[in-house]
Amino acid sequence: MSYFERHIFFCLNERESGENSCAQHGAQQGFDHCKARVRDLGLGGPGAVRVNKAGCLDRCAGGPVAVVYPEAVWYSYVDNADIDEIVDKHLKHGQVVERLVLPNNVGR
Amino acid sequence: MSYFERHIFFCLNERESGENSCAQHGAQQGFDHCKARVRDLGLGGPGAVRVNKAGCLDRCAGGPVAVVYPEAVWYSYVDNADIDEIVDKHLKHGQVVERLVLPNNVGR
Repeated sequence: MSYFERHIFFCLNERESGENSCAQHGAQQGFDHCKARVRDLGLGGPGAVRVNKAGCLDRCAGGPVAVVYPEAVWYSYVDNADIDEIVDKHLKHGQVVERLVLPNNVGR
Repeated sequence: MSYFERHIFFCLNERESGENSCAQHGAQQGFDHCKARVRDLGLGGPGAVRVNKAGCLDRCAGGPVAVVYPEAVWYSYVDNADIDEIVDKHLKHGQVVERLVLPNNVGR
């Protein structure tokens, strides 16, 4: 069994070049909100959910982005309501939030 | 299909409290070496391998640690030879390096 049932990684990268990056588009706020919601709902810990900071996930064109493993589902989110839906549907129940899924052709 | 065939995350966290953390045990060197080897072997990119920085992975007692998704295989490594084996066997060929696997009972 996986150590965490679901492990979500938020790109918090700020590109030094000044190019577009997740950090300029609310990534820290999205991470903080996700972390708080998972904690408040009691979803965190071994055997359950881990909300993780990450460096550049290399899909900057879709930023801010996050990826949920082991399902390898990628999301592009806008606001706290999007994060709530990812937590309540995917992290809690394993249901992919289709409307927020990042198309496979979006890269750096 | 998964955007990256294999996605390895290295904990590079340094705990502010001064407690034991991956950053004190060669995590940055392990990450840098992995990144360079994947690049040199031409393994990186969409549809292939991504080597990623991560914040605390919450398994500090086994540090320095890294996790490979989507397989959810956790490793504890010591030196560059360990990283080479993870790259050459797991990231390239999908073979788990059993001798480096972090036991499931090792947590924070």
